[in-house]
Amino acid sequence: MKFPSQLVEDAVDAFASLPGIGKKSALRLVLHLLQKDVAYTEQIGNSIIKLRKEIKFCEECHNISDERLCNVCADPHRESNTICVVENFKDVLAIESTNHFRGKYHVLEGVISPIDGIGPEQLNIESLVERVQRDQIEEVVMALNPTMDGDTTIYYISKKLKDTPTKITTIARGVAFGGELEYVDEVTLARSLASRLPFDQYFGK
Amino acid sequence: MKFPSQLVEDAVDAFASLPGIGKKSALRLVLHLLQKDVAYTEQIGNSIIKLRKEIKFCEECHNISDERLCNVCADPHRESNTICVVENFKDVLAIESTNHFRGKYHVLEGVISPIDGIGPEQLNIESLVERVQRDQIEEVVMALNPTMDGDTTIYYISKKLKDTPTKITTIARGVAFGGELEYVDEVTLARSLASRLPFDQYFGK
Repeated sequence: MKFPSQLVEDAVDAFASLPGIGKKSALRLVLHLLQKDVAYTEQIGNSIIKLRKEIKFCEECHNISDERLCNVCADPHRESNTICVVENFKDVLAIESTNHFRGKYHVLEGVISPIDGIGPEQLNIESLVERVQRDQIEEVVMALNPTMDGDTTIYYISKKLKDTPTKITTIARGVAFGGELEYVDEVTLARSLASRLPFDQYFGK
Repeated sequence: MKFPSQLVEDAVDAFASLPGIGKKSALRLVLHLLQKDVAYTEQIGNSIIKLRKEIKFCEECHNISDERLCNVCADPHRESNTICVVENFKDVLAIESTNHFRGKYHVLEGVISPIDGIGPEQLNIESLVERVQRDQIEEVVMALNPTMDGDTTIYYISKKLKDTPTKITTIARGVAFGGELEYVDEVTLARSLASRLPFDQYFGK
């Protein structure tokens, strides 16, 4: 499609470069913006620019933050002897929204992935090990996605921490609440069987 | 969901204010941007700001343009005695992509809609009437969407032009190519029957 304006073409290309937005959706967004006033589009544009330019990462846990420390690390009411290891800040949001974790986090910013060429040195693993040793962490909860790469990363970190007295746990793999057994893949079902729970623990006691 | 950063919250709100993007998709886009470098996000932000700020509208046909005249109006090879009236610049793109129209355009920037409070004075109808009279246009092709509002607008414009010798036509309403009769609504089917064509015209002669 040939656009009558270079400005439109640039804006369509910009939107279409985002994941999940194709050329047609991008054009729809551009038409929407053209019908709005300048102040609104400036606000959108500036919030995108400021987002990446001014974002900070927490010096402790590498979670995104507006300050030197993120609001979890800065909160004195959080338990400081438990660290939950996650892949990215979206997982922090997901776990926070359960209101069932009172410890702190450590954001790896990825997982070990030989196929994508991501090795342990590109992740925040060194700082996790330092933190565990320095703060005498009692438990490290691995909350990584249940993939091959996630499991590789869990294995790597557990080896790195094997000389510390820290307990390493992983979140349970199993059949999701509301899921149906016949549609669950065999690996999940096998793991779910292997890590079966006594009846009284099932309801969280 | 509570975000750990005001910058993230602003960016999520900005994306979520666009049509067809919810809070979850907005968050996914923000995470994507956080993983990109600053130059890329600045380019996206600036193209959105520039789009609305620097866009011009063609003085002749109100199509979007980078110059005083759009590339259709500025093209001396286009037939200047036929004007195709469309609702917005997306319709210009759609008709241009057929390569079957060699005349010029007139973009109304909307249709008459009593429900949305849009009257004829908010649309580019006055400038259309002036153009038709000044340039002694032979044919005005109405290519508006086949809705109640579109038909109202066609009727209004045809009344405004009734004292000129200009021929007013509308694009054919009918069963779409590849469509199935049993799924076509009755209004379309009735109009399609009423405007039936002789066999030799059907294949475009």
